[in-house]
Amino acid sequence: MGNGKGAFFYFCAMAKDDQFKKVVSHAKEYGYIFGSSEIYDGLSAVYDYAQNGVELKKNIREYWWRSMVYMHQNIVGIDAAILMHPTTWKASGHVDAFNDPLIDNKDSKKRYRADVLLEDYCEKLEQKAQKEIAKAKKRFGDAFDEEQFVSTHPRVVRYREQQKEILGRMAKSLGAEDLADVKALIEELEIADPETGSRNWTDVKQFNLMFGTKLGASAESATNLYLRPETAQGIFVNFLNVQKTGRMKIPFGIAQTGKAFRNEIVARQFIFRMREFEQMEMQFFVRPGEELKWYEYWKETRLNWHLSLGMGKENYRFHDHEKLAHYANAATDIEFDFPFGFKELEGIHSRTDFDLKAHEEHSGKKLQFFDPELNKNYVPYVVETSIGLDRMFLAVLSHSLQDETLEDGSSRVVLKLPSIVAPIKAAVLPLIKRDGLPEIAQEIVENLQWDYNVVYDEKDAVGRRYRRQDAAGTPYCITVDHQTKEDQTVTLRDRDSMEQVRIHIDQLKEKLKKSISYEHWLKNVL
Amino acid sequence: MGNGKGAFFYFCAMAKDDQFKKVVSHAKEYGYIFGSSEIYDGLSAVYDYAQNGVELKKNIREYWWRSMVYMHQNIVGIDAAILMHPTTWKASGHVDAFNDPLIDNKDSKKRYRADVLLEDYCEKLEQKAQKEIAKAKKRFGDAFDEEQFVSTHPRVVRYREQQKEILGRMAKSLGAEDLADVKALIEELEIADPETGSRNWTDVKQFNLMFGTKLGASAESATNLYLRPETAQGIFVNFLNVQKTGRMKIPFGIAQTGKAFRNEIVARQFIFRMREFEQMEMQFFVRPGEELKWYEYWKETRLNWHLSLGMGKENYRFHDHEKLAHYANAATDIEFDFPFGFKELEGIHSRTDFDLKAHEEHSGKKLQFFDPELNKNYVPYVVETSIGLDRMFLAVLSHSLQDETLEDGSSRVVLKLPSIVAPIKAAVLPLIKRDGLPEIAQEIVENLQWDYNVVYDEKDAVGRRYRRQDAAGTPYCITVDHQTKEDQTVTLRDRDSMEQVRIHIDQLKEKLKKSISYEHWLKNVL
Repeated sequence: MGNGKGAFFYFCAMAKDDQFKKVVSHAKEYGYIFGSSEIYDGLSAVYDYAQNGVELKKNIREYWWRSMVYMHQNIVGIDAAILMHPTTWKASGHVDAFNDPLIDNKDSKKRYRADVLLEDYCEKLEQKAQKEIAKAKKRFGDAFDEEQFVSTHPRVVRYREQQKEILGRMAKSLGAEDLADVKALIEELEIADPETGSRNWTDVKQFNLMFGTKLGASAESATNLYLRPETAQGIFVNFLNVQKTGRMKIPFGIAQTGKAFRNEIVARQFIFRMREFEQMEMQFFVRPGEELKWYEYWKETRLNWHLSLGMGKENYRFHDHEKLAHYANAATDIEFDFPFGFKELEGIHSRTDFDLKAHEEHSGKKLQFFDPELNKNYVPYVVETSIGLDRMFLAVLSHSLQDETLEDGSSRVVLKLPSIVAPIKAAVLPLIKRDGLPEIAQEIVENLQWDYNVVYDEKDAVGRRYRRQDAAGTPYCITVDHQTKEDQTVTLRDRDSMEQVRIHIDQLKEKLKKSISYEHWLKNVL
Repeated sequence: MGNGKGAFFYFCAMAKDDQFKKVVSHAKEYGYIFGSSEIYDGLSAVYDYAQNGVELKKNIREYWWRSMVYMHQNIVGIDAAILMHPTTWKASGHVDAFNDPLIDNKDSKKRYRADVLLEDYCEKLEQKAQKEIAKAKKRFGDAFDEEQFVSTHPRVVRYREQQKEILGRMAKSLGAEDLADVKALIEELEIADPETGSRNWTDVKQFNLMFGTKLGASAESATNLYLRPETAQGIFVNFLNVQKTGRMKIPFGIAQTGKAFRNEIVARQFIFRMREFEQMEMQFFVRPGEELKWYEYWKETRLNWHLSLGMGKENYRFHDHEKLAHYANAATDIEFDFPFGFKELEGIHSRTDFDLKAHEEHSGKKLQFFDPELNKNYVPYVVETSIGLDRMFLAVLSHSLQDETLEDGSSRVVLKLPSIVAPIKAAVLPLIKRDGLPEIAQEIVENLQWDYNVVYDEKDAVGRRYRRQDAAGTPYCITVDHQTKEDQTVTLRDRDSMEQVRIHIDQLKEKLKKSISYEHWLKNVL
């Protein structure tokens, strides 16, 4: 404390941390997310979607599917099984290379990712550098030249150089599978078990992240299978079947949503990194040489999709990969400003012909397209868009949760979910529980429920019911009062503006349709 | 051959078998179902849903969800994870009792379900009895009294008695876990390996049907988990969280759709019995003592749901369970007439308080509801409706596939899917590929795609395109011709009647909405 910038950062970090805690507890209280098997004290890094969560998740999935499959005449969906032939994962490289380097502390018996221990060490060095910078800034005031300072101040220079050395050596050792050197590095830096302070480490070992299981009845005759660690391969192995039976012409895409599983050692940040999660992936098959044009198309189109939800342009940024995976010739992340900072929400990757060629090799079958315009066969290049549905859920939920101070000085908690994905579209409320108002309200529910998920609520004073629906994220409240009996009008209250308008019951459907339709929300995406 | 009833049955069996083969090959050819990982020669009893299959499956799921969750104010959904705390399966009884009795042939190394070997043996005895009956029927003609014949003819009486003895002894031995006697029975009957004829059997062993996996990094520290064998338990462990955060009052229901896994030894009949499958389950929590009233309610409501799809009342029947599972006090199946006969499509079970009580015991937590009207706490009773989504898919697909002979003597293959679940709602076809007709057709596609999954098709003569859409199950074809340019009318062709009407482009949306809306299809379900 005691210095301007440092204190400001500290405040922000606290505010964001605070916001994250609020999101987690709100998610439980309002029926969005429960811990898995809570009555058995939970299963680490696995969560269940509760009564409102299941609807939000379903609506986000549908919002993606509509924009991908229905709005693109050259994209179709599939739904491949979670269990796949094990050679699939040999071909994709997951059997050999989908590993984390792990190290155990012999005293505490705790297990860590060796690379994370080293990264955390570097993070601490950077914090020290930041502290020096903040101190100098405070001392020199307006005269402070940060660029010059960081390039000349001996301690800052050393902290930065150390980080570079450590991360460079780690990358080199991991790349060369020299795990002994990764351990040596941890020992040289005297890195201790963060929980106990012990420096008594085992060797570093590679640990495959795929969950295994066995198909068949006995240990002897069983086939070793994996729970898929990504949905993409289900698309690649079906590429030719879809192309032929769907009479698809390049360029075309195959979209899929579904569960994937990773046996993460360090799974944290609520539903951001889970062991069981859901992906929404689309693989777009193009002519070799045209992949970078399509890569740009999908960068723009996917960002537009995110922006269409109205959660603020400033909360998204591209993060182009500097180091490319061996199969990619271009890759970027769309990052979102989560309560814990900018993190990957979606990846867009130009995967070349790596996957299809690998499956050709391992299956001995041709996975090629005959291009009538070029009059030749080729293995298509692939541009992938891959988004985590659970991350998208967390982005929407955390952005939408707001504490508002109202004009009269009172406050309210409101979940400003984009109405197209909100679990419940409208709550129908009789002002009081008698005089026939409940019956009219029920009739409105029965009329709207064909098109929308709506609820009926008659408990407590109407003001309290409004607050409850605000906190649950319901965009509209429809209130039936005594005037309704005279002129068939109700009040329609907007969650965000809290404004109420009187409207005839017969106009409700049309009014909701205007603001809660795919046409309204998706029209500017393409 | 050569006798009336026998020949008729034989003919039916052939026709049905033939129909089943047609369904399987049509499913592949028209992009409904592919074998999983086909390029690696497949994974037994696992299938992938192809570009049309994924839409049909999604639409059936949504049709169920709407009728359950949106149309019942006292039912909400959840989406629990596939991975659950392992004690869940101890409490539910699956760890101890979800077994198949297996036996290996020592010579062929083939593995069989011991109970299936015995049931197949009985089936053969019954076939012998049927042969005698058919022979006698042929000999005596109209004078034949079947009832008297089967109760007096020595061989028929013996065949029937033998079956009863075998099945009775098997049930008793399995119930008492006397697996040695099950083996003894197989040896006494001299049952041979159906593939090799060898009678050299191992002992019978119980084999648990749950797929296992390990959570965590090392063999020593790993937790043994299971892939859930049913979705129901995800509802039970979340019962109290949903009730409290959702402010639910009994009676209320929790609905869920999701994957489940069973390591079946004998998995067959295409997607009817798969190792990875999807369930649509709803658990309805009621006051103890009122469960049988609700059981009747759900029997009727669920049958109505099936009938709403218009696939013929005669194709459904209830099959009440004579032997009840230990947790149930009433149970029935809704059976559908599949191409291989009447088989279970959905189960409706009055499960008493068995599951919640078991979870209370194993978790040490109270899973009770305070009933304000009775002013007391109790563990609710549960009525379950459980339907296999893949089976429902197979029911819809196999019923809809028809070979039609037209008036002019030509024939067509048509997939008469209920339009509310059809993958593609309309195909928009320019009569020819020039004169601006494709542009008008594309505009229609772009206008309809906000509400419906529609396709554009310009390849081949229009008659061929109609046939292609008939076979794919598309309920409507919209054709743009030269008259369209003059008066903005198109032809709208109905897949089933093949009738065409001229209609203004502006009326298309309204016209489709009339026949493809939840209101139209679901209005008589409750």
